Amino acid sequence: MNVYADNAATTAVSKTALEAMLPCFQEVYGNPSSLHSPGQRAAEKLAAARDLFARRLNASPREITFTSGGSEADNQALRSAAALGARKGKKHIISTKFEHHAILHTLSALEKEGFTVTLLDIPPEGVVTAEQVRAALRTDTCLVSVMFANNEIGTIQPIGEIGAVCREAGVLFHTDAVQAAGHLPIDVEALQIDLLSLSAHKFHGPKGVGVLYARKGIPLVNVIYGGAQERGKRAGTENVPGICGAAAAFDEACEKMAEHQAYLTPLRDKLIAGLTAIPHTVLNGDAQRRLPGNVNVCFEGIEGESLLLLLDDRGVAASSGSACTSGSLDPSHVLLALGRPHEVAHGSLRLSLCEYNTPEEIDYLLAVLPEIVSYLRNMSPVWDELETGRRPHLI
Amino acid sequence: MNVYADNAATTAVSKTALEAMLPCFQEVYGNPSSLHSPGQRAAEKLAAARDLFARRLNASPREITFTSGGSEADNQALRSAAALGARKGKKHIISTKFEHHAILHTLSALEKEGFTVTLLDIPPEGVVTAEQVRAALRTDTCLVSVMFANNEIGTIQPIGEIGAVCREAGVLFHTDAVQAAGHLPIDVEALQIDLLSLSAHKFHGPKGVGVLYARKGIPLVNVIYGGAQERGKRAGTENVPGICGAAAAFDEACEKMAEHQAYLTPLRDKLIAGLTAIPHTVLNGDAQRRLPGNVNVCFEGIEGESLLLLLDDRGVAASSGSACTSGSLDPSHVLLALGRPHEVAHGSLRLSLCEYNTPEEIDYLLAVLPEIVSYLRNMSPVWDELETGRRPHLI
Repeated sequence: MNVYADNAATTAVSKTALEAMLPCFQEVYGNPSSLHSPGQRAAEKLAAARDLFARRLNASPREITFTSGGSEADNQALRSAAALGARKGKKHIISTKFEHHAILHTLSALEKEGFTVTLLDIPPEGVVTAEQVRAALRTDTCLVSVMFANNEIGTIQPIGEIGAVCREAGVLFHTDAVQAAGHLPIDVEALQIDLLSLSAHKFHGPKGVGVLYARKGIPLVNVIYGGAQERGKRAGTENVPGICGAAAAFDEACEKMAEHQAYLTPLRDKLIAGLTAIPHTVLNGDAQRRLPGNVNVCFEGIEGESLLLLLDDRGVAASSGSACTSGSLDPSHVLLALGRPHEVAHGSLRLSLCEYNTPEEIDYLLAVLPEIVSYLRNMSPVWDELETGRRPHLI
Repeated sequence: MNVYADNAATTAVSKTALEAMLPCFQEVYGNPSSLHSPGQRAAEKLAAARDLFARRLNASPREITFTSGGSEADNQALRSAAALGARKGKKHIISTKFEHHAILHTLSALEKEGFTVTLLDIPPEGVVTAEQVRAALRTDTCLVSVMFANNEIGTIQPIGEIGAVCREAGVLFHTDAVQAAGHLPIDVEALQIDLLSLSAHKFHGPKGVGVLYARKGIPLVNVIYGGAQERGKRAGTENVPGICGAAAAFDEACEKMAEHQAYLTPLRDKLIAGLTAIPHTVLNGDAQRRLPGNVNVCFEGIEGESLLLLLDDRGVAASSGSACTSGSLDPSHVLLALGRPHEVAHGSLRLSLCEYNTPEEIDYLLAVLPEIVSYLRNMSPVWDELETGRRPHLI
């Protein structure tokens, strides 16, 4: 059996999204900046996609900018808020220790440019609080950036509460909603979000398309300079097929969100129950306040990479952290932020489900995983030390 | 009859490119950074695409970075060379007055960051010389950026000669090859190019994919920060379907380049001959040293926009300048750089052909255009003044 359980890394393009893309390759292929009919037909598709994202996020079309992905949207959001802050002499930014590297590395770049960054600690359940944000606010704070749902452990942050704290303090609030968009309801007005990033390939849209929502009145700075596309704020011919696919996928994901949640949550919970029944195994992040498809556990005494290879051998695609950092041998910065010791963080497994996964697949995962964990532990000298008491169990 | 004659703005995706993309949406859809088999299958496709671009450009795969398009590649090339120059105390950049705005606007941003920019004048035939570059070199010059072929008038620059001047002077040489790639032979070794940008949708590949070639040893700076994709130099999940389509399109374009040139050149020349036979009409740019599909003329006494609308009404998609600036009412900076007066530059028309255009379409263009020009001139008070001698003819 083949089980793709790495939907947080990327998803298959849906039929709906592909059907929206196909006419844009060879029929409506004009450049939306062109005055002629082929160009204007492409411009109409682009406008319809923009309208759709705006409507689904409760924003207006002019607040929607298309980018090449979530990372670019994150970069542009942070740089825009930082530039605006710098103009007012405010150069302090608050974020968290478990953000995606698109946030953390951009913040590092901003630090080199004279900004000060406070990264909030992550409580053990993987949910930061609005109180933490409030306590970190300074008179020179220009931006708070807290992810909507964490990409590894799937925990959902109190975005509305943080939005309220920021709005009250007159500080811009950005949320990296790459993992949440299409999976959780997002209303930028109700949640008082000023800037939001999302990525199409996390909800069955194509790779290479992101959206940056920026509240009216927040001037964007260019990450890419050039032509006057996207009101001069994002140069480069718009990826019309990709954008149309992204919009169709988002529409479908939003439309069927409750249905998908109702389907996935019991599967997720069954998986969590089954895996945490394995001795010396711990769930990472709050059991309830998490994405409907996210399971993330640490198995003591084994290496995540070996686990992934054996799972792959059984047809299971999973991950130990985020795909974006999988080249690295370091343990996940998210799990370390959560307080897991290095040796525990190394034994992590993320299974991220989508509505394409079946109950039979969950049963299969629950059949193969205990067996693989047991096999790896039996081969592990560390496990031997743990079991014989020469080394204390951490889980 | 419908004639798409705006292939410099964008092209239809070829059958070959689409066939290369399709399996990547729902079959090989993994994240190439993932360790598991679905991810590794995507990684293999990505590697094959990288190898192909490297081979076709006479580069090595590690010198190829995939971006979201030509604009991003241009931005990253200039910023990387500038950062390298700054580290050596060299902050002077040479470019030309008729570059694409992805170059010009990035240079403006660099000027604000303390760089000095010399923009070379454009000789009347639209071809800058290596001598101009040599004369502009200073001891603190860190970069020369000259486009391979101009996006409006299609003139081909002496890239090999400029490359030799730069290499001799120890100055990095970047070329924006967005209009040239897939249409003209490019050998980065033979031409002594250090950095090169190209865009897939200009040669029947998909929108949203660009390539940055950077010679080994030139460290790239990030335009987009985040994950470790593209050796840490371009964050964001790779657009695998788009990249595969881009590679297939480039392979085909390179393979059939001589054939396409032989087909297009006579069509182009017939069009030029027919259009310049209209009184008070001038070809912009050298008649021979131009892209095989590019025709760009100025008709005195008419407005380019009216011309485009009437052409569109007859089924002809053409442009007056580049699509990237078509929102603007200013005359083309390229034609102004070429020395055309404002009133002449306003009456410009670019027809850009590709191998999909037929001889019948050329005949159709030559049938409708003189008629439309005549109609517009008869309606124009300016033309009346020109014809009655109250205003001198400029062409």
